[in-house]
Amino acid sequence: MKLTILFGGASFEHEISIVSAITLKEKLGNFDITFIFCDSDHTFYLIEPEKMKALTFSKGEHKKMPRLTVDQGGFVQKNMFSKTEYNNVVLNLIHGSDGEDGTIAALLDFYSIKYIGPRVDACTFSYDKRYTKYLCDAIGVKSVKYEVMHKDEHCNIQTPYPIIIKPASLGSSIGVSIVKEESELDYALDVAFEFDDTVLIEPFLEGVKEYNLAGYFAKGEMHYSIAEEPHKEEFLDFEKKYMDFSRSEQVLKAQLSEEMVLRLRTNFDKVYRNLFEGALIRCDFFVLNDEVLLNEINPIPGSMANYLFEDFATAIEDLAQSLPHAKRPKVTYDYIHSISQAKGK
Amino acid sequence: MKLTILFGGASFEHEISIVSAITLKEKLGNFDITFIFCDSDHTFYLIEPEKMKALTFSKGEHKKMPRLTVDQGGFVQKNMFSKTEYNNVVLNLIHGSDGEDGTIAALLDFYSIKYIGPRVDACTFSYDKRYTKYLCDAIGVKSVKYEVMHKDEHCNIQTPYPIIIKPASLGSSIGVSIVKEESELDYALDVAFEFDDTVLIEPFLEGVKEYNLAGYFAKGEMHYSIAEEPHKEEFLDFEKKYMDFSRSEQVLKAQLSEEMVLRLRTNFDKVYRNLFEGALIRCDFFVLNDEVLLNEINPIPGSMANYLFEDFATAIEDLAQSLPHAKRPKVTYDYIHSISQAKGK
Repeated sequence: MKLTILFGGASFEHEISIVSAITLKEKLGNFDITFIFCDSDHTFYLIEPEKMKALTFSKGEHKKMPRLTVDQGGFVQKNMFSKTEYNNVVLNLIHGSDGEDGTIAALLDFYSIKYIGPRVDACTFSYDKRYTKYLCDAIGVKSVKYEVMHKDEHCNIQTPYPIIIKPASLGSSIGVSIVKEESELDYALDVAFEFDDTVLIEPFLEGVKEYNLAGYFAKGEMHYSIAEEPHKEEFLDFEKKYMDFSRSEQVLKAQLSEEMVLRLRTNFDKVYRNLFEGALIRCDFFVLNDEVLLNEINPIPGSMANYLFEDFATAIEDLAQSLPHAKRPKVTYDYIHSISQAKGK
Repeated sequence: MKLTILFGGASFEHEISIVSAITLKEKLGNFDITFIFCDSDHTFYLIEPEKMKALTFSKGEHKKMPRLTVDQGGFVQKNMFSKTEYNNVVLNLIHGSDGEDGTIAALLDFYSIKYIGPRVDACTFSYDKRYTKYLCDAIGVKSVKYEVMHKDEHCNIQTPYPIIIKPASLGSSIGVSIVKEESELDYALDVAFEFDDTVLIEPFLEGVKEYNLAGYFAKGEMHYSIAEEPHKEEFLDFEKKYMDFSRSEQVLKAQLSEEMVLRLRTNFDKVYRNLFEGALIRCDFFVLNDEVLLNEINPIPGSMANYLFEDFATAIEDLAQSLPHAKRPKVTYDYIHSISQAKGK
């Protein structure tokens, strides 16, 4: 199938997005893919498939490639006397800000470009971990207790040590610290506040099991990946997660009872329905004392969590054919007409 | 001051936005205003101030006016050999979808255009009334109890009659019905589902008082309008609200105790802080049995609730100078460089 992969973005996860795109090029080898790179200054470039290498971008070679603009229905390459349009379904593969905060979703919506990825409201609830907690409380999914701290209002933390300090709105463990005692707190807060004005404080849970489950809605039903127990030390730091983003080999199922798989799916379903349609997302769960807790929603997981699916290419094809269609309201001038008639004008 | 007013949009409130813009032209007479109209097909037009009349749009005369595109830093009028840039601060005056659902906010963010109006996450929590409830629960602001119904899953309603049926995501009373008994229910649901796939059901509260309060954060502090008790019959229908959008005369303060004004402001503040910065919003409260309940957040109120402010022009000027600056993350290629060095490439 034809697909446009949109990657890059003005994001701390810019490099991760490049790695994801390169991984999907390999994984979706039989697709006809157009690669569009969004540079950190928000210029779009058309990248030839054979130039899809990390060094193309780190060396700035992409700047010599054709620039694209976005217009109704697709991306456009304008030449002196002609223009070429790229109007495939877009896979939004921009991780972090731009891609996951609703910016790219809204841009594609505004220009009526069909895309695989979270819609604007889904982005709000997954990008900011504070809002993920709001969602969990509202839909009856359990999550880890938390406190919120804003940059200008340092307050006393109630959670007993050890605690985890997280910027509210970043993935890939960026700016995250485990704080074992108070003497380490100020430094951890400084690090987190470098990335976000809002920080979440959670208890560090000993003995927690972590399971990742991906899925999507297509052809009228939910489709789930296998559940994976990610390798971890205390937690994956950025560099390890970064390597993680280039994964393309299918992983082994976690050793889980059927009942537990069902519970993970039930929680996944509650999160996904009526919010994430159009996206393939990964939910990272904790299991502690036989309780399932949602840790994080990845609405654009690294390399689309391809390694969790038996037939990833089919997943993308099915999803591309099941995208929600944005209704654009029909505009009339009935009221203006009726008022001007009443005024006799 | 110089200001661009962006209005129109692909929205059921398209006409209301036109009326709002015409009202602000009058109200901000000493401003140097550029009017940019977003047509329902998402084409932008530059409208000469003297053409700012309702009939210009209902007759389609705007289509003969200069087309603009959006680019980094502003709107652009391209001619054969030159281009004119319009890069004032934008006042987002598009009510309903596009303007209040995060689309325009994201578009302006993406192109680094400064604007007065709600940011993307603020839009999510105000555009969909269901998410306003999530917000209220999370921040400790009381609101009216509710049930949710999705288009494809009609279910038994628990709330006793009389009830109000509302599309989750529309303002201006569009698609809203009061249902007094079960025989009226199906029709009311059909009407509401015409506008949205999600519908809220609330008890119709007898003897409720309604108060509207607007405000914004600028120059380091919150600024509040007077509180108004809106005229109402059972509730304002679309046509009455529509006329309401052209209001420009300052209204009288509601007869409220100082203590009640303070309670309204405290609730307003909880809703606004760390979410609505950059916007002038109006919160519509209910007071019932001495309890303050948030009914609705209007993140882009009709004609910007100018009639609630003593000095509306100064409010807009101050707000324009206190806009949140979107941090665009600095992109580096450190990891790609370190990995390619490790590989010896």
